[in-house]
Amino acid sequence: MVLRYGHRFVRDARVSTHVCLVARAFGADGIVFDKRDEEVRKKIEEVNRNWGGRFWVDFVEDPLEYIKKFKERGFVVHLTMYGINVNDVIEKIKEDYRKKGNMLVIVGAEKVPWEIYEISDYNVAIGHQPHSEIAALAVFLDRFFEGKELRRKFPDARVEIIPSERGKKVRRLQ
Amino acid sequence: MVLRYGHRFVRDARVSTHVCLVARAFGADGIVFDKRDEEVRKKIEEVNRNWGGRFWVDFVEDPLEYIKKFKERGFVVHLTMYGINVNDVIEKIKEDYRKKGNMLVIVGAEKVPWEIYEISDYNVAIGHQPHSEIAALAVFLDRFFEGKELRRKFPDARVEIIPSERGKKVRRLQ
Repeated sequence: MVLRYGHRFVRDARVSTHVCLVARAFGADGIVFDKRDEEVRKKIEEVNRNWGGRFWVDFVEDPLEYIKKFKERGFVVHLTMYGINVNDVIEKIKEDYRKKGNMLVIVGAEKVPWEIYEISDYNVAIGHQPHSEIAALAVFLDRFFEGKELRRKFPDARVEIIPSERGKKVRRLQ
Repeated sequence: MVLRYGHRFVRDARVSTHVCLVARAFGADGIVFDKRDEEVRKKIEEVNRNWGGRFWVDFVEDPLEYIKKFKERGFVVHLTMYGINVNDVIEKIKEDYRKKGNMLVIVGAEKVPWEIYEISDYNVAIGHQPHSEIAALAVFLDRFFEGKELRRKFPDARVEIIPSERGKKVRRLQ
């Protein structure tokens, strides 16, 4: 599950939509925002309708409270360029997941309060250069699921792509 | 090298900036746009000044002509959800790179003309679900460089992060 921290309306709408789509496409089951943005949710519901699956978008008033509660039943990974290089920690995280089951991945917008660094079980860097929370989430999940997420079938899809060397092949399913 | 196809001013500025930053952080040497957007270039030059390296941003009038010329000295990968799953083709691409040396990765905005599908040596899908060109580029380069890109040192950096389990540690270098 993914927590998007520090979403700002309008300015962040497209970036947050990309974050949602990445979470969905790379194997997360849902995403929690700290602001109620119905535009973003509507877009994702439309994607679900066409492309299938039950990826959910939710909102919480108090993200820190939410994280604390989550920790009673799982562990927390915060993606930040200041953290430990993903290459050095991904195997440990996979092992933890096998033991604990539930994982919450936090992706922040520009400013993230120090409490998030403190409360997270892992602060993980997808490299230590400035880039993009969208990219960080995608690479983290791709490493975590070992590329298998890119073969997942989404139930109840209306359309499905037939991979092809050239051009666009789409199959209607309903 | 990366080609960003179909950039639209203002609407795409943030997404294109993320695309540039990802290209830089994940090991590309430069990026070519089909529109001259000095705002994007300025942002990347500022990142270079602080974080080092010589990542360049350039513009071409006619991207198709540019691709044709590029093919005389290398090969072209186009990232598209309609292509062959990256899991099935990445080893072949690495092999091609060892033979041919130069690789151009094309990331499109929403609409990409069919000529791009035709002219590319590989149409590669980072999964077949809708998500984000930022994520697609990051995962492709991460797979291509096998995670080694996330350890790269950038020459002439003013600052450098010291990976840490909690908090933010930055070293000033100049």
